[in-house]
Amino acid sequence: MSPGDSLRRLRERKPLVHQITNYVVMNETANATLALGALPVMAHAREEVEDMVALAGALVLNIGTLSPHWVDAMLAAGKAANAAGVPVVLDPVGAGATRYRTETARRILSEVDVAVLRGNRGEVATLVGVDAEVRGVESIGAAGDAAEVARFAGTTLGLVASVTGPVDHVSDGDRVLAVANGHELMAAVTGTGCMSSAITGSFLAEKQAEPLEAAVEALVAFGVAGEDAADGAKGPGTFHVNLYDALAALDPATLDTRARIT
Amino acid sequence: MSPGDSLRRLRERKPLVHQITNYVVMNETANATLALGALPVMAHAREEVEDMVALAGALVLNIGTLSPHWVDAMLAAGKAANAAGVPVVLDPVGAGATRYRTETARRILSEVDVAVLRGNRGEVATLVGVDAEVRGVESIGAAGDAAEVARFAGTTLGLVASVTGPVDHVSDGDRVLAVANGHELMAAVTGTGCMSSAITGSFLAEKQAEPLEAAVEALVAFGVAGEDAADGAKGPGTFHVNLYDALAALDPATLDTRARIT
Amino acid sequence: MSPGDSLRRLRERKPLVHQITNYVVMNETANATLALGALPVMAHAREEVEDMVALAGALVLNIGTLSPHWVDAMLAAGKAANAAGVPVVLDPVGAGATRYRTETARRILSEVDVAVLRGNRGEVATLVGVDAEVRGVESIGAAGDAAEVARFAGTTLGLVASVTGPVDHVSDGDRVLAVANGHELMAAVTGTGCMSSAITGSFLAEKQAEPLEAAVEALVAFGVAGEDAADGAKGPGTFHVNLYDALAALDPATLDTRARIT
Repeated sequence: MSPGDSLRRLRERKPLVHQITNYVVMNETANATLALGALPVMAHAREEVEDMVALAGALVLNIGTLSPHWVDAMLAAGKAANAAGVPVVLDPVGAGATRYRTETARRILSEVDVAVLRGNRGEVATLVGVDAEVRGVESIGAAGDAAEVARFAGTTLGLVASVTGPVDHVSDGDRVLAVANGHELMAAVTGTGCMSSAITGSFLAEKQAEPLEAAVEALVAFGVAGEDAADGAKGPGTFHVNLYDALAALDPATLDTRARIT
Repeated sequence: MSPGDSLRRLRERKPLVHQITNYVVMNETANATLALGALPVMAHAREEVEDMVALAGALVLNIGTLSPHWVDAMLAAGKAANAAGVPVVLDPVGAGATRYRTETARRILSEVDVAVLRGNRGEVATLVGVDAEVRGVESIGAAGDAAEVARFAGTTLGLVASVTGPVDHVSDGDRVLAVANGHELMAAVTGTGCMSSAITGSFLAEKQAEPLEAAVEALVAFGVAGEDAADGAKGPGTFHVNLYDALAALDPATLDTRARIT
Repeated sequence: MSPGDSLRRLRERKPLVHQITNYVVMNETANATLALGALPVMAHAREEVEDMVALAGALVLNIGTLSPHWVDAMLAAGKAANAAGVPVVLDPVGAGATRYRTETARRILSEVDVAVLRGNRGEVATLVGVDAEVRGVESIGAAGDAAEVARFAGTTLGLVASVTGPVDHVSDGDRVLAVANGHELMAAVTGTGCMSSAITGSFLAEKQAEPLEAAVEALVAFGVAGEDAADGAKGPGTFHVNLYDALAALDPATLDTRARIT
């Protein structure tokens, strides 16, 4: 596994990352994707999602502000992605907070072959039936250790679970890798979780055969950018701005040595 | 009334503020809410708004980019909020500019028990039948003094009217309080009015029994943050970024002495 | 032609620019419009677009995240704009990437009298039947020279084609003007193309009789702001923030001498 090599290739190939995401973070995930070196595209109309995903290297589905038309589009895009061999990331924002979110996330998981499920501990725990407290779209503690939630979700759902938090845990049900990169200011900005899903999609577009590696490398890259962004930040506003600068300035040559994977 | 004490409690309890708001400012009001210390959640699907508002400390309705499905969701959420005792803020963005906006704002006011109506002078004047000129979503002068518009709206509509401008005026129809905090750069950034509504919702979640105090304290906190954000700003871009830093850095210990309430 | 004089008038009159645009950039185009000195308003409901456009100095249609209801609203607003003599800008984001986008852009061009078509080379080439490769919403090379694409689109479609890129080309089918202002960091931020369409609408609101001049002046103003924003930028994040400061700080007195028009 080499986040640096993957980032170098990603920047050369500039994969298109099709995102059907929420209204709150569209600009932010697009800019994070672009700053990293991939090419974002947002398209949600039932009339075009199948055409668009066929051009993409990865598809990111995010249920942060869902409604029925959008759910239909996500399912159609997800199935088209599966048919075309385009890997899919699901970000189950707020699963556990309302039945509609939980049921929609489960429906996507049952109808679409998801490569990586990227969520917080409460969201992922909810989806595998572990008790969790979710307030709105924030996870407030959860039953069980995050590593175990990731492993259990990986096993039960047959995918790579990428459970982010102060320390991230990524598992395919067999191996569990922890990523300790990042900075606490990431939790002070709305949409950093959604950005990490977009970046996961960007790395996945480069590493279709290895979703576990792609998910881990994405969190390393995003975490290291978060560490750099905190340097000189005076609060969540300047940190947020620095984060795009830091993503664009990520150095493939030093990324591997800065990775804190265990 | 102590904005400092209220802010301290708000940060301890981190109330969930459910916002059904416009596409233009979703990220911005979410980040302003989070920077202040509350927890934002955006959810607009008819399928989930009642579940979501039941978890919330306050509901903020904002008609800035409305359409029929969204209006339905706002009404359903507002009624569920009323039933659950969750206070409601209405931001009638652009009322007066088009019939659809004026009528929708009036419909919400008639079907939902609104605790605080937060708008500019033109919008609020329109809703109580005072002549006002509204261009797009900006108020361009208005008949009558802002303090009188606030008092008249408070009386007529039976709520707290929070009329923002160079000097803000808040009234329950009986008392009228003026808040002179703020900075002119706030008018140079889209969505600062919407942010003030989100922050009003955040304070209201802490002060259900006293919407007048909550509305005033929110404008003090936001205005002081605006004053701090202007320090070192080179224009609307840097001011906007500084605003989140300033909200996060607001000091409860000095907030009361910096309040300019009359 | 004097971008400086036009900017001075624009700031005095503050024209209202009605934008029916995509979810990704709504905040950004609103803030760019406001920083320049015009007044943005976003309204997309079929129920109000005709009322809103009647108040506006220009209408900007942008298909970046289209869906059927939005297309209906764009057509209704465009026809109402035509009837009222309000000039229309079309930004055909992603035309060529999917059939739905290409067909929608063509439909708007056939049903609405568009004054300025502002797109990248691939999008504009697609709309006049020249082979072009479009990946997602980015133009990746195109058959033929951008100047020729602009001229051909101007002639074929009977409008002003404003084809932006490292050097911009604007043509009414007769004259072709090149604008060499700008900075490469503009391509590193999502939505700068959309911002240039919003700014084109702002200038067009001042120069209804001369869409070619308005389109060129807008690109000069935006390009000069981009040059200023790059000064001190550490990457796409700080550049993006600086861009609003630079738009607000544009000096009408020096704009003409800084214009690089050929």
